[in-house]
Amino acid sequence: MKNQEIMQKDLKFNWHPCTQMKDHEFLPIIPIKKAKGVWLEDFEGNKYIDAISSWWVNNLGHSNEYINKKINEQLNTLEHVIFAGFTHEGAVRLSERLCNLTGFDKVFYADNGSSAVEVAIKMAFHYWKNKGEVRELFLSLKNSYHGETIGALSVGDVGLYKDTYKEILIKNITIPIPADQSEKEAEKALKEAEKVFEKHHKNISSLIIEPLVQCAGYMKMHSPLFVKGLRELCNKYNILMIADEIAVGFGRTGTMFACEQAGIKPDFMCLSKGLTGGYLPLSVVLTTDEIYMAFYCDYEELKAFLHSHSYTANPLGIAAANAVLDLFERDNILENNRQKSKYIWDKIQKFNDLPNVKEIRQTGMITAIEMIDYPWQERKGLKVYEYGLKNGVLLRPLGNVIYFMPPFIINYDEIDQMIDVAYEGIKKVGE
Amino acid sequence: MKNQEIMQKDLKFNWHPCTQMKDHEFLPIIPIKKAKGVWLEDFEGNKYIDAISSWWVNNLGHSNEYINKKINEQLNTLEHVIFAGFTHEGAVRLSERLCNLTGFDKVFYADNGSSAVEVAIKMAFHYWKNKGEVRELFLSLKNSYHGETIGALSVGDVGLYKDTYKEILIKNITIPIPADQSEKEAEKALKEAEKVFEKHHKNISSLIIEPLVQCAGYMKMHSPLFVKGLRELCNKYNILMIADEIAVGFGRTGTMFACEQAGIKPDFMCLSKGLTGGYLPLSVVLTTDEIYMAFYCDYEELKAFLHSHSYTANPLGIAAANAVLDLFERDNILENNRQKSKYIWDKIQKFNDLPNVKEIRQTGMITAIEMIDYPWQERKGLKVYEYGLKNGVLLRPLGNVIYFMPPFIINYDEIDQMIDVAYEGIKKVGE
Repeated sequence: MKNQEIMQKDLKFNWHPCTQMKDHEFLPIIPIKKAKGVWLEDFEGNKYIDAISSWWVNNLGHSNEYINKKINEQLNTLEHVIFAGFTHEGAVRLSERLCNLTGFDKVFYADNGSSAVEVAIKMAFHYWKNKGEVRELFLSLKNSYHGETIGALSVGDVGLYKDTYKEILIKNITIPIPADQSEKEAEKALKEAEKVFEKHHKNISSLIIEPLVQCAGYMKMHSPLFVKGLRELCNKYNILMIADEIAVGFGRTGTMFACEQAGIKPDFMCLSKGLTGGYLPLSVVLTTDEIYMAFYCDYEELKAFLHSHSYTANPLGIAAANAVLDLFERDNILENNRQKSKYIWDKIQKFNDLPNVKEIRQTGMITAIEMIDYPWQERKGLKVYEYGLKNGVLLRPLGNVIYFMPPFIINYDEIDQMIDVAYEGIKKVGE
Repeated sequence: MKNQEIMQKDLKFNWHPCTQMKDHEFLPIIPIKKAKGVWLEDFEGNKYIDAISSWWVNNLGHSNEYINKKINEQLNTLEHVIFAGFTHEGAVRLSERLCNLTGFDKVFYADNGSSAVEVAIKMAFHYWKNKGEVRELFLSLKNSYHGETIGALSVGDVGLYKDTYKEILIKNITIPIPADQSEKEAEKALKEAEKVFEKHHKNISSLIIEPLVQCAGYMKMHSPLFVKGLRELCNKYNILMIADEIAVGFGRTGTMFACEQAGIKPDFMCLSKGLTGGYLPLSVVLTTDEIYMAFYCDYEELKAFLHSHSYTANPLGIAAANAVLDLFERDNILENNRQKSKYIWDKIQKFNDLPNVKEIRQTGMITAIEMIDYPWQERKGLKVYEYGLKNGVLLRPLGNVIYFMPPFIINYDEIDQMIDVAYEGIKKVGE
């Protein structure tokens, strides 16, 4: 088959996520035949650097031989079994490793990031209920993104995704975020935050945050001090804290988990995306024995957390996740990332010379270039996207923000190509 | 490793779905080492018939050689790629096949049943909004179950899962269900339903139903006439209809999809569970071009459906789903099921003689035995579960209802064993 044939059939039958389908009257939908490392290849041999790790999931490269091998071994043993009343070796091993890595005590499994967020906010609400309190408000950050199901969307704040549904969302309040990565702005935002805590704390079950980087929120970044300060406020006002590390976990921000940089431990941590190295949908909510024990009682008390998904703790996804942790142990990934981040940061200084670039920023292996405030209708980001595809790089800007979140195994030549294409693309749309 | 070692480690780190964890102080959590066909096997060689298809997902048996082969082929080609702006051959093929099987036009992918329901209810709400109407009410059936995320839970009605969260759910109204499978009860319920339609229709975006069998709702069953009548009411009052065939789709009720028996086409159909033959989390929402076109316009009109999940249209899950459809085409599954259903039905007549059995009922490959109304605190179902495990059969009763939803490839000897163990278990708890 050729690209054209698949493209046409695709548009006949598929409704793609996060897409105005009419855009594809001028924008080709690219059929990928195979992938290896950072490279995606279509049916006519065109190749693209996956500079966004296919929506921030693929941390260790496509078609990784080791992960493939481990999934195949699992396939030949146990593809799946119900996870209520039953368990399997992979799930026990993965949970133990995740607890050891993070200091949490218990793991609850789900299938995607949204579902993990739903589990965490339901658990937080339910925790207080089991203690005899009804706290119906959720607290989150301005500009936050936590997923698309009704609960997850409700605690998010990106208008593009949320506004349409405002009549069918649940109650949520937001606190301001720091204007930039400085400690000064973090302190300012924390002062504003405290006012909200003070006013509403008795009705708030949890605060949910994306530590260090609000990815879908246009790659806004803040100081670790902000995360630390929010943990202190949660302690002071007795509110549970949820860290949504779905996008930032597994080395993306420079440490294994973003919370480490703030030196804090939340009450819940949500992980997905990189958890399986970009292979399979799987997510977890990590929590403490203190939370767990608030649900642990005789059945007749009816305090159990009865949430479930059919494929909870799917052995194939878990085999991928265990393989990913093996690779983190075997290869020197975090240290190599530090060198690559520095290389990228040095190299993108030249973007500051472009008249249509407003700011460059970086946290670990996330690097963002914000263009000037073009009216959204001009869709300048989309033009950079188109330029990238024509030149072999998959960039997928968020509004006027171009960013790099490549697989960690990207090499220096590939980094050069990725950055050079983005540079030319941004330059071109500024002309 | 031995069972005991894994069990202990499991309970140290894992918080299981839909479980009061304290139950496992007396109930063993069984570690499964491998599985084949209908059989699960633990680390000490004990074997269990998976009479509930591991939460109704595994239609074609564990460790199916053909599905394994197809997933492995996909693994060696393309494990995953972003599904916005990109596509792949498996997704095009699967979508075309699902549309051909159902008469729908477009496929939207998600990862689990809850997420599919969220997509459908958001799309229905958004459809009316794009047409200039705000309809904030959702309509569903009494005793319904549609999943656990906030939106899906809100349109459900099983108190056990829902009541705890009532303060944080969105608005939903319910209509009565038929008391049994008779046409008379269907007609009676439809009359009651029409009163609700009449009163609220202007504010209702959609009706969601589980056609023919409310599975998590204690395997309650109704006549196809009820489904047909609801479609007519939706037409008359201009409300969109969502068929949640997550549990009942793919041959479970005797036809490929349950809606076929009512001769109707809803506006949305949600599928998951059996979609991948019990291998991997994947779900779809099928819909019509009429719905699709209400979102299709110039980007600047901001009417696009921007929902997304990272692993949307995951190629590995889709490879499993295509393999499942291959097997439905190759093997005579539906016809064989008809014979097995009849055999099961004939064989369970003897349950009527047990003094603690209230009703037996069947729809296709779902067979339920309802015990008398024991107080829930007596947990008679759990006692049948324990008896089953001790005798090599995984039953997982819903309250006082014992049911069979085995993989379709179960043979007649295995059916005998499954039924005989359930019979003895029910008899024993009645003594």
